[in-house]
Amino acid sequence: MTFLQIIEKKKLGGELNEGEITFFARAAADKSVPDYQLAALLMAIRLNGMTDRETTLLTLAMRDSGDVADLSRIPGIKVDKHSTGGVGDTTTLVLAPLTAACGVPVAKMSGRGLGHTGGTLDKLEAIPGMRIGLTEEEYVRQIQEIGVAVVGQTGRLAPADKTLYALRDVTSTVDSLPLIASSILSKKLASGSDAIVLDVKTGSGALMKRIEDSLELAKIMVGVGKLAGKPVVALISGMDEPLGTHVGNALEVREAIDILAGRAGGDLLRVSLRLGGYMMLLAGKTATPEEGEALMREAIASGAGLRKLKEMIAAQGGDPRVCDDPDLLPRAAVVRTACCGQEGYVQAMDTTALGMAAQAMGAGRLQLTDRIDYSVGYVLKVRIGDRVAMDTPLCELHARNEEDAARAEAAVRAAITIGPEPCPRARVFYATVTADGVHLLEENE
Amino acid sequence: MTFLQIIEKKKLGGELNEGEITFFARAAADKSVPDYQLAALLMAIRLNGMTDRETTLLTLAMRDSGDVADLSRIPGIKVDKHSTGGVGDTTTLVLAPLTAACGVPVAKMSGRGLGHTGGTLDKLEAIPGMRIGLTEEEYVRQIQEIGVAVVGQTGRLAPADKTLYALRDVTSTVDSLPLIASSILSKKLASGSDAIVLDVKTGSGALMKRIEDSLELAKIMVGVGKLAGKPVVALISGMDEPLGTHVGNALEVREAIDILAGRAGGDLLRVSLRLGGYMMLLAGKTATPEEGEALMREAIASGAGLRKLKEMIAAQGGDPRVCDDPDLLPRAAVVRTACCGQEGYVQAMDTTALGMAAQAMGAGRLQLTDRIDYSVGYVLKVRIGDRVAMDTPLCELHARNEEDAARAEAAVRAAITIGPEPCPRARVFYATVTADGVHLLEENE
Repeated sequence: MTFLQIIEKKKLGGELNEGEITFFARAAADKSVPDYQLAALLMAIRLNGMTDRETTLLTLAMRDSGDVADLSRIPGIKVDKHSTGGVGDTTTLVLAPLTAACGVPVAKMSGRGLGHTGGTLDKLEAIPGMRIGLTEEEYVRQIQEIGVAVVGQTGRLAPADKTLYALRDVTSTVDSLPLIASSILSKKLASGSDAIVLDVKTGSGALMKRIEDSLELAKIMVGVGKLAGKPVVALISGMDEPLGTHVGNALEVREAIDILAGRAGGDLLRVSLRLGGYMMLLAGKTATPEEGEALMREAIASGAGLRKLKEMIAAQGGDPRVCDDPDLLPRAAVVRTACCGQEGYVQAMDTTALGMAAQAMGAGRLQLTDRIDYSVGYVLKVRIGDRVAMDTPLCELHARNEEDAARAEAAVRAAITIGPEPCPRARVFYATVTADGVHLLEENE
Repeated sequence: MTFLQIIEKKKLGGELNEGEITFFARAAADKSVPDYQLAALLMAIRLNGMTDRETTLLTLAMRDSGDVADLSRIPGIKVDKHSTGGVGDTTTLVLAPLTAACGVPVAKMSGRGLGHTGGTLDKLEAIPGMRIGLTEEEYVRQIQEIGVAVVGQTGRLAPADKTLYALRDVTSTVDSLPLIASSILSKKLASGSDAIVLDVKTGSGALMKRIEDSLELAKIMVGVGKLAGKPVVALISGMDEPLGTHVGNALEVREAIDILAGRAGGDLLRVSLRLGGYMMLLAGKTATPEEGEALMREAIASGAGLRKLKEMIAAQGGDPRVCDDPDLLPRAAVVRTACCGQEGYVQAMDTTALGMAAQAMGAGRLQLTDRIDYSVGYVLKVRIGDRVAMDTPLCELHARNEEDAARAEAAVRAAITIGPEPCPRARVFYATVTADGVHLLEENE
């Protein structure tokens, strides 16, 4: 078998077998095949697709292309959570302490911000002193001791994915559902979890703009989980506006603390509870996700969730006092409010543009080597459906200087459509997908 | 505009515009874009296709990526001919002297053998002393003086094609009709011709095995010629068995000489006359291709064609005496005949395998750097439809040694199917495609 024959087969629409898929993943991991051949195969996969069986084989082969974390020393079912990425999407910082406070061990490897979307690791590093680079030994010990750790990858996980991920970015093959699914799941499986809850975003700020694509991706990933013997549940949730009100690293940590302290709520809390509820269900802690949600609400009311976050921050070298005094987080030099400047209803948001506005302020990277400014970003004061007047606050800008603030204000303004017609609120929940099938959710379910 | 946006557009099935296609051709010519991005675009083109307009733009952009030969000093309409490649396919050596003898200037840049197919340049070099590497100056002067020259590329023609051709070979994107068409025509247009006659082969020894694909390729190329303002006529001819009886470089030169001397005929003569007839039509020499064919037959009868070949050989430094005494061509050490060894009818030939058998004897290259043995090859003694007995000669082998002869005999035998049922002769002509449309030809038309 040569790599050329594999390209040929996929080009003609054939189904690759286990040997061919394993060859592909190994070639990507050790770069034994030239990039142009990998690129040709990626485009053939993008255009001719893959069956669930192929996607499963690719996921497993990519998982096995590097280290696989061993979490067997941690008792119980380890459930991981993954989001396809959004703006103001800080669910991990809310649900990890809450589920851990409810007795479910959380072993979570997170990622950096990508494009217009934020990343949990960057947000954690906004907390002074916080370490996200634990060894596998430290990582396991911390979970044994306090029940939760959120870190960067330990070891060399799924190196095949690393090669393909970088190559997809420069060959216009990012938007392939089988390639997205295998990329996400190979890393999750390599990080040693027993079950996975997925948050598949849909809407103007999501990788998938259309609900059909989000549903399809969710179905593929749940199907791969089934074939791979790992329970996977996917929630389809809206990303037509930022999930939380805060966008920017320190600002998002502040919102998570406010929620855990019971001072804030909204869509970020609702989605965090829903995802956490499914994690508790898969971990065998509760019989339904609703029971789990109720336990987590109690952990907020009792302060157990915020205490768990403090423990985690302290265990990872960060300053736990930020939980009591969020002003200890990095703060921007310029903080000022911009008003709507027109009357009407908030009709729509270009959430990708909103994410890019924060990125341009310094909250995200344009290149991998860029340094992030943790203090900058903005707090949105409106949501889709809101009725606004000229002097209704639109956003609170946190910028390095007046010039950046002015540029960000213009970008945020351009991304938000205000019109004369009343408009319904944006959907938050669309569907859940489990091994049993798709369950479409009602507007306020 | 970035190259990534071009890949994205084609991936989504869009039609590339002139600016995008020019960017693509320049990037390929100067290698300013990484191979993996070119590979991704090639696969997207292979799977999503190109419109005739895109193919035309790509052809012109590839033509303009390097030098364009200036033949304006040669009076009259310069008509070039191109074959998509076959086995025992020596039409150039027959029709170039014949049409030149009839007063049509022939300025022909030919290629080397590729894979199982032979190349005119290799055949010419079988003639002792023959030079195929003329400067543009020498090339034009020779055509002015004797009306014909068959040489390798002068200058740096279509460097974009050179890059893409090599990359297609290793990314399974050879079989894209728009890419084949633009590759062929960009080089032909860069070589300075005013009109082009194409011989599109179909069958077991052709690049296109199916008549539908050959017709489609012919239609695309004629369409591109129309849009580019250059008359293009395509003949679809059969390649279900070698066209001539001789396979191998010196052997094919011998067959061409035999035909010009009036000692031989067959399908090679028929196809050469048909192609030459269209060349004379496009050159404005005759009103119909049939008239041209009649003139060429006269040039055989009068010896004018063979004399023209002698002139050309002499002009390019070769030994013209081979035309009178073909035994002066390189001769193999071992020459022996193999018999059919079974009774029945010749049903089919795997012509690609027959080409590879000659290649394995040393008549072709496995790698670009391989040296060719001009003397080796074989003469087929049967054609599809022939009734044969045990002792009917199958082929005459010309080999370096007995071992090679035995191996070639086995390969030729394996490639030829002899069965008990009578079988019709192989089709020679299928169709002609002109700017006016497709004209399907009757069996013996």
